[in-house]
Amino acid sequence: MVLNDVPPPSTVDDPVYRTGVLELLGLLAYGEISACERLAEDAKMAPDLRLKVEIAAMASAEFGHFAKLRDHLVAIGEDPFEAMRPFAATFERYHQHTKPSDWLEGLVKAYVGDGLAADFYREIAAYLDAETRELVLETLSGTGHSEFVVEAIRAAIEQDPRLGGRLALWGRRLMGEALSQAQMVVAERDALSTVLVGGVDHPGMDLAAIGRMFTRLTEAHAARMEKLGLAA
Amino acid sequence: MVLNDVPPPSTVDDPVYRTGVLELLGLLAYGEISACERLAEDAKMAPDLRLKVEIAAMASAEFGHFAKLRDHLVAIGEDPFEAMRPFAATFERYHQHTKPSDWLEGLVKAYVGDGLAADFYREIAAYLDAETRELVLETLSGTGHSEFVVEAIRAAIEQDPRLGGRLALWGRRLMGEALSQAQMVVAERDALSTVLVGGVDHPGMDLAAIGRMFTRLTEAHAARMEKLGLAA
Repeated sequence: MVLNDVPPPSTVDDPVYRTGVLELLGLLAYGEISACERLAEDAKMAPDLRLKVEIAAMASAEFGHFAKLRDHLVAIGEDPFEAMRPFAATFERYHQHTKPSDWLEGLVKAYVGDGLAADFYREIAAYLDAETRELVLETLSGTGHSEFVVEAIRAAIEQDPRLGGRLALWGRRLMGEALSQAQMVVAERDALSTVLVGGVDHPGMDLAAIGRMFTRLTEAHAARMEKLGLAA
Repeated sequence: MVLNDVPPPSTVDDPVYRTGVLELLGLLAYGEISACERLAEDAKMAPDLRLKVEIAAMASAEFGHFAKLRDHLVAIGEDPFEAMRPFAATFERYHQHTKPSDWLEGLVKAYVGDGLAADFYREIAAYLDAETRELVLETLSGTGHSEFVVEAIRAAIEQDPRLGGRLALWGRRLMGEALSQAQMVVAERDALSTVLVGGVDHPGMDLAAIGRMFTRLTEAHAARMEKLGLAA
């Protein structure tokens, strides 16, 4: 949990906050279902059945996360597909721009994406009302399936050290693309941004705090790359 | 539950029975993971996000079934991937021969395959020891996700009645291909067949009983086709 920079969460009575949370849940839900879809796609490239099963387990966990978010949206009287619709283009663009050219790039993408999503969830959880926060943290709790990736990537680089350079470049591209899509979302969705940066009647992160959040996300990404044996 | 034709289940002390059960669990596990994989593939053809999510839910349920079978195999000291290996070719052949050419064919395949698998599980459960039977019936219990298919297929045929003929033909092909692969498995795997037909020291189905089982499976298939609005 991130405890610095955190003002008291906004109340659910605030209509801008409510809209922002709805957008946030739609964003997360689309992210999960699209991650599930891409992992299923990557599983086809798996060199053996064991690794295929590992990827399928991740895809299935992402589907479980999606189902939780969907059920919550239904429970609060919202149409989950309406809530997700505005974010389809963002994720399709991200995946379009980051098509793995082989199995190892797929693994790195799964690992980096999973980790970045989990970090982001933890960061924003602090700005949410208790119920939404619990949902978002629960959604996060199922990850950690991707630890097998570390072993697979390190073994591959040991066998062919030239891979390290290509995969490091790939990792930087993934992070760059993720940040660029995130920036577009923030620019386009006022209510969602307000959840993070605060509105006239409730506090949020100031620009310096947002800067620090990006620094933390970037540092965590670098740590993950190092764990894979890759230069960030 | 099928109660006719059922002798007392074999004991787990019989080494041929044990081998047969191991083969059976390997067969079921490969079937589940390969169904999961194909459903994920079909999900890409879904015309909208709602239907994509329905198919992803089925894929995720199949993965859950697979995980139960895998965990059981590990618990009884077997390597699940070794147990699955002999059946890879069977399922790859089946899927190779039954590639859906569009979304509707994918739906029919999911529905028909899900139903046939469930019927088969119920049929064989009666011949198994209590622990294995419970596992097999549990594996079965998660299905039923595919009911949305009925609605989708009926709606499509209502819009374009010519579809009915093509999809009916497709359904017959699926059943024919499944039976032909099943027959090859039985012919190749003696121990597995012995679980069903009995060995020197324990009873099983006689040929007439096997005939009646096939009749029941075929009738249930015809009933499913009718439910979809298709001639069997």
